[in-house]
Amino acid sequence: MPLNQFKVIGLPGLPEVTAGDDLPDLIAQTIRQEDVRAENGDILVIAQKIVSKAEGRVVRLEDVAPSAQALDWAETHGKDPRVIEVVLREARRLVRMERGLLIAETQQGYICANAGVDTSNVPQGTVTLLPEDPDYSAAEIRKSLATELGVELAVIISDTFGRPWRNGLANVALGVSGMSPFVDYRNERDRFGNELKATQMAVADELASAAELAMGKTAAIPAALIQGFSYPEGEGYGREIVRPPENDLFR
Amino acid sequence: MPLNQFKVIGLPGLPEVTAGDDLPDLIAQTIRQEDVRAENGDILVIAQKIVSKAEGRVVRLEDVAPSAQALDWAETHGKDPRVIEVVLREARRLVRMERGLLIAETQQGYICANAGVDTSNVPQGTVTLLPEDPDYSAAEIRKSLATELGVELAVIISDTFGRPWRNGLANVALGVSGMSPFVDYRNERDRFGNELKATQMAVADELASAAELAMGKTAAIPAALIQGFSYPEGEGYGREIVRPPENDLFR
Repeated sequence: MPLNQFKVIGLPGLPEVTAGDDLPDLIAQTIRQEDVRAENGDILVIAQKIVSKAEGRVVRLEDVAPSAQALDWAETHGKDPRVIEVVLREARRLVRMERGLLIAETQQGYICANAGVDTSNVPQGTVTLLPEDPDYSAAEIRKSLATELGVELAVIISDTFGRPWRNGLANVALGVSGMSPFVDYRNERDRFGNELKATQMAVADELASAAELAMGKTAAIPAALIQGFSYPEGEGYGREIVRPPENDLFR
Repeated sequence: MPLNQFKVIGLPGLPEVTAGDDLPDLIAQTIRQEDVRAENGDILVIAQKIVSKAEGRVVRLEDVAPSAQALDWAETHGKDPRVIEVVLREARRLVRMERGLLIAETQQGYICANAGVDTSNVPQGTVTLLPEDPDYSAAEIRKSLATELGVELAVIISDTFGRPWRNGLANVALGVSGMSPFVDYRNERDRFGNELKATQMAVADELASAAELAMGKTAAIPAALIQGFSYPEGEGYGREIVRPPENDLFR
């Protein structure tokens, strides 16, 4: 019986990405330089940060005039009011605003800390925003890489989110292209004949988590290639992972 | 520059586990049979289900007398009142009891659906409970495998949890032994000199998610070996991943 196995390869050596850079081209160059052989069916996981930078989703804080609400919150909690102002602008709704933490529903529908506004791995005095439409970004990158590398990859744009109830952060999928984000076991039966009622695995999130282990927050490895995993075929979107408010018990 | 990469190998071929089975011995046999070479520093991820079965954490529903509360809830939502009774007994506290869903804090402190009581991959008429102390279980398995295989592994006992705000399930770590469940970047600096303030990655959860991708809900692959990942050394426990109620905004 062939073993069910896959490999996760961090892709180092990407240069610092700035607005207007051709990200698929930079990734293709890295893959070639590192002598990784990308194959049809591989999955490329890319950190949101470099997608945002390439798309110019960067805000210079000196251009931001904080509102009274931002000034008040920032003063109470020892934060930069300009960063808070950007967070409030990116938030469609504030889910929690307590103990110095801002958990927000972003314009794209994700629920995460600081509405995805990030002050790490960016030049000082700037912050990044999430891509406007990570599924669109993933699809565009996928198309370009098919041309650049001559192979059909699935693409996941990942970000690092906190979770209720559990300490520490884990990577999840924001944008997905070229695969379904779920493996669905519903209506299948286990070996005892029990129906698997509620089992729909968020494999895109699990792939994003797996990729994070080969990336690095300080080591400048913002992308990883996953080889040998048979992902669920079909068109799918990261936005399908966002649970609609009416089905959510924790908003 | 050597590539940052690791491999995840599903371990098939484990027999059906029952109470009193020597699980480390069964796993060691499987590793030998499949011609996988386990090495010092590999991580073994084991599905909670087989640990629970080996530990006899199985309840026969014919022995369960449902309470009035269980009968009432079961009737309203079309559930088996005996299963609901077991869930209520396993729950230290109910976090949400809405729309047919029971989200509970278990006796061990985890927050999950049905207090971890599971009706899938078990003989009909029975349910499994979570191990009483998954960190203890992980440590015992680790010790036995060191003897059986002659190598020092880290061990993670994983389970499949739902998440607020996101559709689909993902695997997380319940018990951990032989590694820290976190990689801590706090006080480190990125390449721009920004301090990484809140970045503590829950790598044990990410490893559990990665392993799930090589397992299978219906394919009877309840364990996986992860090779080539440099995990954070030191003693650590899965219970450290459980966020204390006083730091949690979503209880």
